Amino acid sequence: MASPLKVCIVGSGNWGSAIARIIGSNVRSRQRFATAVKMWVLEEKVDGRKLTDIINTEHENVKYLPGYKLPENVAVPTLCNAVEGADLLVFVVPHQFTRKLCDEMVGRVSPRARGISLIKGIDVGPGGLKLISDIIREKMDIDVSVLMGANIANEVAAERFCETTIGSKILENGLLFKELLQTPNFRVTVVEDSDTVELCGALKNIVAVGAGFCDGLSCGDNTKAAVIRLGLTEMMAFARLSSSSSEDAGAFSPTTFLESCGVADLITTCYGGRNRRVAEAFAKTGKSIEELEREMLNGQKLQGPATSAEVYHILEQKGLLDKFPLFTAVYQICFKGKPVREIISCLQSHPAHL
Amino acid sequence: MASPLKVCIVGSGNWGSAIARIIGSNVRSRQRFATAVKMWVLEEKVDGRKLTDIINTEHENVKYLPGYKLPENVAVPTLCNAVEGADLLVFVVPHQFTRKLCDEMVGRVSPRARGISLIKGIDVGPGGLKLISDIIREKMDIDVSVLMGANIANEVAAERFCETTIGSKILENGLLFKELLQTPNFRVTVVEDSDTVELCGALKNIVAVGAGFCDGLSCGDNTKAAVIRLGLTEMMAFARLSSSSSEDAGAFSPTTFLESCGVADLITTCYGGRNRRVAEAFAKTGKSIEELEREMLNGQKLQGPATSAEVYHILEQKGLLDKFPLFTAVYQICFKGKPVREIISCLQSHPAHL
Repeated sequence: MASPLKVCIVGSGNWGSAIARIIGSNVRSRQRFATAVKMWVLEEKVDGRKLTDIINTEHENVKYLPGYKLPENVAVPTLCNAVEGADLLVFVVPHQFTRKLCDEMVGRVSPRARGISLIKGIDVGPGGLKLISDIIREKMDIDVSVLMGANIANEVAAERFCETTIGSKILENGLLFKELLQTPNFRVTVVEDSDTVELCGALKNIVAVGAGFCDGLSCGDNTKAAVIRLGLTEMMAFARLSSSSSEDAGAFSPTTFLESCGVADLITTCYGGRNRRVAEAFAKTGKSIEELEREMLNGQKLQGPATSAEVYHILEQKGLLDKFPLFTAVYQICFKGKPVREIISCLQSHPAHL
Repeated sequence: MASPLKVCIVGSGNWGSAIARIIGSNVRSRQRFATAVKMWVLEEKVDGRKLTDIINTEHENVKYLPGYKLPENVAVPTLCNAVEGADLLVFVVPHQFTRKLCDEMVGRVSPRARGISLIKGIDVGPGGLKLISDIIREKMDIDVSVLMGANIANEVAAERFCETTIGSKILENGLLFKELLQTPNFRVTVVEDSDTVELCGALKNIVAVGAGFCDGLSCGDNTKAAVIRLGLTEMMAFARLSSSSSEDAGAFSPTTFLESCGVADLITTCYGGRNRRVAEAFAKTGKSIEELEREMLNGQKLQGPATSAEVYHILEQKGLLDKFPLFTAVYQICFKGKPVREIISCLQSHPAHL
């Protein structure tokens, strides 16, 4: 029998800690995996103590997931020790840290290792949009799956029932990660259309900004449902566009949008979620996105507006802005002084109804 | 040039009156249609006056759509006069009246007339499920399209932006009704998968009951999104099943669920909507559905539980209950004393995750 697979969780925020609870518990009962799980933690001080020490002694990430214990088989070494010998790498860090982290890890990870990215967001490369999983693939030269879905971390930690989607270019690897991650209350579907799964996690935030504008304008339920659905059609069209210029174009499937990473995550993001909330405040107060980020998010950057800017520039280059009136309007309202009510008027001539 | 097409609206409730505003206005500017529109009204007294007289003189359905004027070219004769000579029939009555009304109309309507049903609900025939449009088709021997979407009537009357879906077995007829009905704020997509469009309008109410149970149990956003998405997959599986036993099996398309009649209407129904609201009260109070119908709906029947019963019996006959755990649980919780929390446990072994 093959030796048990060693797991390393790269990241330890709110979502990373929630997923560590699942992994730490699952590896104990599934012989395919080694019982000892390593977790990489970005060192910081909490009340004068090192966060890594707190986690190793108290088995709780008191800063990012307070109130939930981590299994005792999850331990925290330094990054180079954490990844050494790892067979399975679970990436769950803020997306802007990805490149730097990969640079630190490269050379320490076996090319036979397999990764999965839980990182939401996209990057911009010279050729346009850059998926976070592509950054990891290129830097580390390993196969990378992705996991996205309607997964608010605290609800996952509380073991409330939910679903998620794994996208894997190599199906076998997706099924392996499903074995690592599925529990009775965390249900996993695996699809091969990995790029779409990852794009959903980024593009949904643009739609949530549009939905928030609707709420701010008190448009009502019909209009909000239309914005969500038209947003979904633009997500699909954009993913199709991206896939046609990528190497594995054959993987694109419209039914991926019916998975948890698609319609389900979009719904929670457009009803709950901070992109919706800040956009509603934008419509009601007339303050700028930057002002609201300072006031409502302690200066953290909101993903929806930033993603809309990246997408806008790609669509502009391709001459396709008129095919994406919702994405375009979100960008122009956020950054170009277009009145918020144009989120609706731009939809009156949407290509979906021609 | 062909003579202009005469339109008759069969029905005059909340939704019928809202759609009469659109039709009455559109026919004035589109030469293909006759300017005079007839509307059939079920006679009743409002403050001692006949509702038909009030509509003909004051141009307002003061009972079902107060506050919104009807165009003056919409007039109300008796049913037999209303349908005589009509080229286009818009059916918008409560579904339990369909058979009786068709019986009154038969023989007065040209077989060249074309119908569109805005009626939500399903009926049960000896062979299982019976679509309302099929009842009209069989009784009247005319082609019948359907129109369904995220269309709360008062918001449509207030001319808030929304979308809708027309399903037509004969595409040309669907496009004709689109010409009659589309406005800048009421955007129409036409698909040929008519049976699915109609089924969506009925099946969504079962899912909304499940979503309401979740709300009553305070399950959180992840779980509710999972219930909505798994409900959508069961709607799709059920529609596929129905289509495989119907004559035009080729029309079934999973992308119909991405139209307004599918995901958009499902979202509004699962967040607003009375099926969700009553189900939440059911979970919280432990009262029976009948009691809650009396208390919360003036004794009107809730569609979700009734539809779940019809669907349950069909699935039971076919031996397929285990493929539809959500639909099955909704029925058993509503009518068979199963605890409400089983709405979640039944999903832990959902076939979508196997």
